[in-house]
Amino acid sequence: MSAAFAEAAAAVVGARNVVAAPADRAAYEVDFWHQHRGTAALVVLPGSTAEVGAIVRLAASHGVPLVAQGGNTGLVAGGIPDRSGRQVVLSLKWLDRIREIDPAGDYLVAEAGCILANVQAAAANAGRLFPVTLGAEGSAMIGGAVATNAGGSNVLRYGMMRELVLGLEVVLADGTVLDLLKPLRKDNTGYDLKQLFVGSEGTLGIVTAAALRLATMPRERVTLWLALERLEDAIVLFRRFRDDFGDMISAFEIVSSYGVERAVAAFGMRRPVADAHPWHLLVEVAWSFREGLRDRVEAALAELFEAGLVSDGTIAGSEAQRQAMWRIREGQSEAASQVGEVVRSDVAVAIADIPALVAATERAIAPLGDAAVLLPFGHVGDGNLHMNFVVAKDASAALRHDLLDRLFAEVDALGGSISAEHGVGRLKRDAIVARKPATALGLMRGIKTILDPADLLNPGAVLAAKPPPT
Amino acid sequence: MSAAFAEAAAAVVGARNVVAAPADRAAYEVDFWHQHRGTAALVVLPGSTAEVGAIVRLAASHGVPLVAQGGNTGLVAGGIPDRSGRQVVLSLKWLDRIREIDPAGDYLVAEAGCILANVQAAAANAGRLFPVTLGAEGSAMIGGAVATNAGGSNVLRYGMMRELVLGLEVVLADGTVLDLLKPLRKDNTGYDLKQLFVGSEGTLGIVTAAALRLATMPRERVTLWLALERLEDAIVLFRRFRDDFGDMISAFEIVSSYGVERAVAAFGMRRPVADAHPWHLLVEVAWSFREGLRDRVEAALAELFEAGLVSDGTIAGSEAQRQAMWRIREGQSEAASQVGEVVRSDVAVAIADIPALVAATERAIAPLGDAAVLLPFGHVGDGNLHMNFVVAKDASAALRHDLLDRLFAEVDALGGSISAEHGVGRLKRDAIVARKPATALGLMRGIKTILDPADLLNPGAVLAAKPPPT
Repeated sequence: MSAAFAEAAAAVVGARNVVAAPADRAAYEVDFWHQHRGTAALVVLPGSTAEVGAIVRLAASHGVPLVAQGGNTGLVAGGIPDRSGRQVVLSLKWLDRIREIDPAGDYLVAEAGCILANVQAAAANAGRLFPVTLGAEGSAMIGGAVATNAGGSNVLRYGMMRELVLGLEVVLADGTVLDLLKPLRKDNTGYDLKQLFVGSEGTLGIVTAAALRLATMPRERVTLWLALERLEDAIVLFRRFRDDFGDMISAFEIVSSYGVERAVAAFGMRRPVADAHPWHLLVEVAWSFREGLRDRVEAALAELFEAGLVSDGTIAGSEAQRQAMWRIREGQSEAASQVGEVVRSDVAVAIADIPALVAATERAIAPLGDAAVLLPFGHVGDGNLHMNFVVAKDASAALRHDLLDRLFAEVDALGGSISAEHGVGRLKRDAIVARKPATALGLMRGIKTILDPADLLNPGAVLAAKPPPT
Repeated sequence: MSAAFAEAAAAVVGARNVVAAPADRAAYEVDFWHQHRGTAALVVLPGSTAEVGAIVRLAASHGVPLVAQGGNTGLVAGGIPDRSGRQVVLSLKWLDRIREIDPAGDYLVAEAGCILANVQAAAANAGRLFPVTLGAEGSAMIGGAVATNAGGSNVLRYGMMRELVLGLEVVLADGTVLDLLKPLRKDNTGYDLKQLFVGSEGTLGIVTAAALRLATMPRERVTLWLALERLEDAIVLFRRFRDDFGDMISAFEIVSSYGVERAVAAFGMRRPVADAHPWHLLVEVAWSFREGLRDRVEAALAELFEAGLVSDGTIAGSEAQRQAMWRIREGQSEAASQVGEVVRSDVAVAIADIPALVAATERAIAPLGDAAVLLPFGHVGDGNLHMNFVVAKDASAALRHDLLDRLFAEVDALGGSISAEHGVGRLKRDAIVARKPATALGLMRGIKTILDPADLLNPGAVLAAKPPPT
């Protein structure tokens, strides 16, 4: 990267928003979880869409590759630079304005650098719900959530980020601003271009703002903790809840006995139910009325006990109890990291295949003995489990790869996905490319060529980078 | 088109599935509503995805343009050939199998030629709801619904077709079958290619099958008819219902006094409420429980009367009463066509702008005097109205265009969409192209070039056709 680019960038964003010193760059070169590290040529922090456009235009004319970065909470090294030292990190964090909030129209317009929790809070202040919720919401930003098609624990009811994006503002590879921000619920006037950018991980354009759908704020919410003897019963219970409560179910999460024990030990809590049980469900149902739901949940629960589907269970009696239940669920990896290193994964299968996936994975890692413990948890209602593994802190990279290979083979056998919500990034690129039919890969490359002919937008993420010109 | 193509096509699908005689072709050359007419070189009816692939491959090698056609209920001449006599209609109607239905997994896989109402029925038989509902559901087919990103009266709660498509099977322009049928709820493994085909109106590929999400079947449904004095009150009422009933609202439809009078006269019905009122709302709320919703609706209604927001209103007491209410709503254009010709439209604005749009359009057509009556109805909750006009049966094409121009100018002024759910087709192509920023059009053309380099898939729909090679 030329000094000329750095100078020209400083002229656009101001010298203090061009970060070159290694110590100052460091925070932008490693992900939030400190699992992946790259080396940036430079970090540039524009303060507006116009500045993003100007920087992208500069990068295009200098042939400088750009890696867009938000809250840096991604899990697949899609928002940090590679190790070449050639890539420039484009941090969107100064684009942090909520430009508009229209509670009557059930939408808001947030810039890419808005923190997810702040968007939730802004919606709540206006009496509306912005429903995307995930463990990293205190740091994750809207631009990254759009670019990775973020999921989380409310997808069951409200959909993934894609379903909540009404409009987008995107800076294209030549620096042009593409304004697709119309917040209309229905607009069939040609190819829906915004879909291209959702989930494209910064490889097709830089998302600078999004018009996002809001939902009605629930007035009564009931949170349950259920203890089960068999994983199969979780599937039966999901069906029963689905039939009875329909789309009032906002979360249907599973945690293993091992995971619960790690969490209560790590966080100094009690179990929500007295005894140890093999499996635990965290279920949340909510509606717009003020009262009446808890009674209906209690009646349903009584039937489930009678049918022998539930061994024990409790309804959160206070917000503190609810938060404690969620702490166990959201803290699964954090708690396990106190006893070892956590090898993360994020897979999806048909809901009915969840028990088969867990059983097959247990069998597949059995030959490894004590080297790894399976820590499965997550979104039963989406068929999406985080099939993590706990290994020794000094475990080899070979073991980590071996575990994921064994897991992915079982996912493949069930026709599942090896990245349900985390995306591709740099980490999963080769594993995913190896699984895609040539036709699909060809189309992906064709789209990339149309939108980023010089391969300067996050090269090496999602698809292999073109070799740089020599 | 060469005789060689016809012969080769007959070898693939059988001679009786290649229709050449003008009288036999006629039904495929005019839309369901008899508003647009083209001329086909030939009609080919493949019986399987493999046969579609073979025909598309043949067409590619012979340079023959193909127009995919389903139930032919589109309103923008996107599924009928142009007048060149060069285009071959590819009817998908023999691909009419529901391949799979998985009530536990809340999805089914339907082929392109499945009639929408049959898919609804198959889901209902399995105890699930396929929620897309629209006037033409007895003829419209799944392939067309996907290709046009169909909307309808339940979008408010369940989303448009795009949000219900879990997977697709598509035949590409070279005849390759792209299998994206995995019915996973979450799958972030690269660009979401299926999004390209939803709403692309047969110009990027031929949809042969779709994996579709199913919802919980509601057990209690309450249908209301409300009479209002002012259109503004409909917006206030929508907000009140939204806050109280959240996403239990499945329909929130408006009909004008003029429209109600036409319908009750045409269909020999009574008005749902005794007296004439300027505006009428048809509202439907539903949930998964067996009872309790009607009481809540009645309580809400009492408050609305007290607040003076509603002049009169009734709750459907039987399925027959409910059907009668829907007959008035769905029969708006049909009823009006008994007193004149209906000029159809389909526009969207912000929900709060609906009264402004109607008022501005009334003002804009006032200079035309008795030549046209505005017939507005549709989906208040989506900001999507069908702003139709009733004109004399012998009205000139110039008047029809003038009316739409006046309407579209008001929609533009409000930042709305001139095609909310009907799409572009051939009818709205030039009007939409004229409104698109050059950057967006350039991207659309780029995508078209990647997927259909020879411009043989529905050329002239959505985008202008390339001139044929001379």
